[in-house]
Amino acid sequence: MNDVTDVPVALLGYGTVGSAVTRLLLENEDDIVRATGHRLRVVRALVRDPGAERGFPAPDGVLTTDFGSIRDDPEIELVAEVMGGVEPTGGHVLELLAAGKPVVTANKQLLAQRGAELFAAASRAGVQLRFEASVCGAIPVIKVLREALVVSNVHRVLGIVNGTTNYILTRMEAGDTYDEALAEAQRLGFAEADPTEDVSGADAAAKMAILATIAFGSRVTLDDVPYEGITGIEPGHIRAAHEMGTVVRLIGRATLVGGAVDVRVQPALVDRHHPLASVEGAFNAVMLQGDAIREIVLEGPGAGGIETASAVVADMVSIVGTTGTGFLQDDPTWRELARLEPGELRTPYYLNIEVDDRAGVLAHLAERFAAHGVSVARLVQHQSERGADLHVVTHEAPAGAVDAALLDIAALPETHGTPMRLAVIASSDSGL
Amino acid sequence: MNDVTDVPVALLGYGTVGSAVTRLLLENEDDIVRATGHRLRVVRALVRDPGAERGFPAPDGVLTTDFGSIRDDPEIELVAEVMGGVEPTGGHVLELLAAGKPVVTANKQLLAQRGAELFAAASRAGVQLRFEASVCGAIPVIKVLREALVVSNVHRVLGIVNGTTNYILTRMEAGDTYDEALAEAQRLGFAEADPTEDVSGADAAAKMAILATIAFGSRVTLDDVPYEGITGIEPGHIRAAHEMGTVVRLIGRATLVGGAVDVRVQPALVDRHHPLASVEGAFNAVMLQGDAIREIVLEGPGAGGIETASAVVADMVSIVGTTGTGFLQDDPTWRELARLEPGELRTPYYLNIEVDDRAGVLAHLAERFAAHGVSVARLVQHQSERGADLHVVTHEAPAGAVDAALLDIAALPETHGTPMRLAVIASSDSGL
Repeated sequence: MNDVTDVPVALLGYGTVGSAVTRLLLENEDDIVRATGHRLRVVRALVRDPGAERGFPAPDGVLTTDFGSIRDDPEIELVAEVMGGVEPTGGHVLELLAAGKPVVTANKQLLAQRGAELFAAASRAGVQLRFEASVCGAIPVIKVLREALVVSNVHRVLGIVNGTTNYILTRMEAGDTYDEALAEAQRLGFAEADPTEDVSGADAAAKMAILATIAFGSRVTLDDVPYEGITGIEPGHIRAAHEMGTVVRLIGRATLVGGAVDVRVQPALVDRHHPLASVEGAFNAVMLQGDAIREIVLEGPGAGGIETASAVVADMVSIVGTTGTGFLQDDPTWRELARLEPGELRTPYYLNIEVDDRAGVLAHLAERFAAHGVSVARLVQHQSERGADLHVVTHEAPAGAVDAALLDIAALPETHGTPMRLAVIASSDSGL
Repeated sequence: MNDVTDVPVALLGYGTVGSAVTRLLLENEDDIVRATGHRLRVVRALVRDPGAERGFPAPDGVLTTDFGSIRDDPEIELVAEVMGGVEPTGGHVLELLAAGKPVVTANKQLLAQRGAELFAAASRAGVQLRFEASVCGAIPVIKVLREALVVSNVHRVLGIVNGTTNYILTRMEAGDTYDEALAEAQRLGFAEADPTEDVSGADAAAKMAILATIAFGSRVTLDDVPYEGITGIEPGHIRAAHEMGTVVRLIGRATLVGGAVDVRVQPALVDRHHPLASVEGAFNAVMLQGDAIREIVLEGPGAGGIETASAVVADMVSIVGTTGTGFLQDDPTWRELARLEPGELRTPYYLNIEVDDRAGVLAHLAERFAAHGVSVARLVQHQSERGADLHVVTHEAPAGAVDAALLDIAALPETHGTPMRLAVIASSDSGL
């Protein structure tokens, strides 16, 4: 066995994740030495109140309130940011990078808001900025994209990247209303008291921006990602989905079409045979599609203190394992890719339209679809109180054409209310 | 952007995989430079007949019949072995490692048969031996285990690691007999003319030995892995499985129980809600369970020329990205772990027993289960031509106790033939 060298590391923050990182490093010292030949030792951790109670007590003398004692200590070889927030966190990370220290962060908001600046600083200093824990908790999707799929030309990323909404949708499948499912998610700690960030799709949009950036090697920001949440999903949609052999999921989708990028978050119907349909509860999953790999799916628990800490430590280990090789340092070589016109993304759609139940209505609708080049694959009609409830699945069509057809249909006198539209994630043999 | 340096590489073999590796390196040069700062260039490839037709033509002057011209060329910085076979391949790889050249191999048999020797040689020379392509094609399970889950204490690996058998079982679910499904697999190129290696479970056993070795950091050889294939699976078992809300899959299972290792390959019933149940056709999937991650599932295509080449290139890229850091070099620090006594592995079991259809038979059976401490969770009885066909699912029990109970039951005068036994892979909420 080679000589084992110590790598002194520091933490910004020592809450749930910081405590868990310290514990994992101590309890798994042998495994880390086996993997890297190095022993990672927490020598300092920045906190506001060194006297506060901790989940896993820090070794003596580690806690400090002085950021400079971390930034200016030449012994400290890498820093993990687990304090959260955008300020003063962002400033600290920039100073650390400028001081030549590689940084690991679990901070999705920081990356979504100041990513470009942070990556540029890391590149300038020639040090790494790693962020596995910022997306999909313990699922190593960033590592897989950056290190295993380098030559795979990944052109599509489909993800269930928000555990809260997936939990709620799974409960609704079992018969809960949206409100019941949300209350249960809050009781179990899967949803915040104010769940807006999750149920609106905003959280998923930030994560998809990060995933698209890495998958396509081109900067995608939160502003580039239109999103819809799940608050409009009703038990009737879940039932209709079930009857059509599908389930409703909040799907993040990043697509590279002819050199242009489209990233969006929307509830969608997922074919029961599609790998993402079996993702239940608060789990996350990401499907990566590329030339050389066809499709790979990674599934696992989303957020969680220990899962996040595990991803933070994995990043620390990876930095130790790749320092000095130039691996993954070339942020400035990222491409500039165009954004796909929002209406141009092609997918099959599910449409729910309430109409008068009388002769000729269907012909009117069919004519409107045909006028916009939208081809109907399946149609189910239910009686409703006010007439007929139509469930339509189209063949693959551009979003813009479907929206235009729906606008026409909504304007017909026989149509009630506003039609509902969901993308369909078809399995490869569904013929859509 | 930093200076781009050339990394001259050589291939052993230039068949389907070698051609695809060369093509991927050329077509994705920019992506590799972006990831590593290096340009990987194939400068030599060992072949038997330089005049033969190639899938992707080698650049002029690359093909050679002289192994020494690769081994002795100080310019060549890494070598990918894609020629297959155990000899002379193994000797070549040993000589390359001894000459200080890192090696990537896709060769499962070479690793399963001469792994200890090869890893020791790599360690002695201080160079890497990577082998992602040897298990599960394009699914980066080795990288994830070694680099992302270092501190996760992975204690269980469940895998569908043979695409041929998974394809056959999926067809049988759709109504084919075993013979029909096998013939179709052969027609599509998913099964060899002689399918023994696949359908016997031997191929899966070699892959599970490699996965267990990496997951637990302790040498597991093919001899440590008992295996059963799928040739005994009949349409009746598939139907019974379906009625119980499960599917039949050939499952590789590596378990670390109290410091002892158990690795085996068996057909098993998988609960329909379990992530492995939705793996269909020739796909592979691996579930990794550990302390810090709960469970992560990786799914994707199994073997295939381009998928294998993609994994080979990923390994080349990873070697370039970690050279000189000591990352993952410490093979000699692997642990020596005991082997679990075969009868001690606990799991729920499905049992199929044919008995006389008369009063008291069930009581006899129940008594035999109870005598061995095996608790019955579910029981379904069908009429059969000769009596009653019992489908029993037990709660978790040691394999030895279940076998002992079955031996007793087989000896009862009211039992016909030999009872059938399959492990059950339960989902977390099944109550088994």
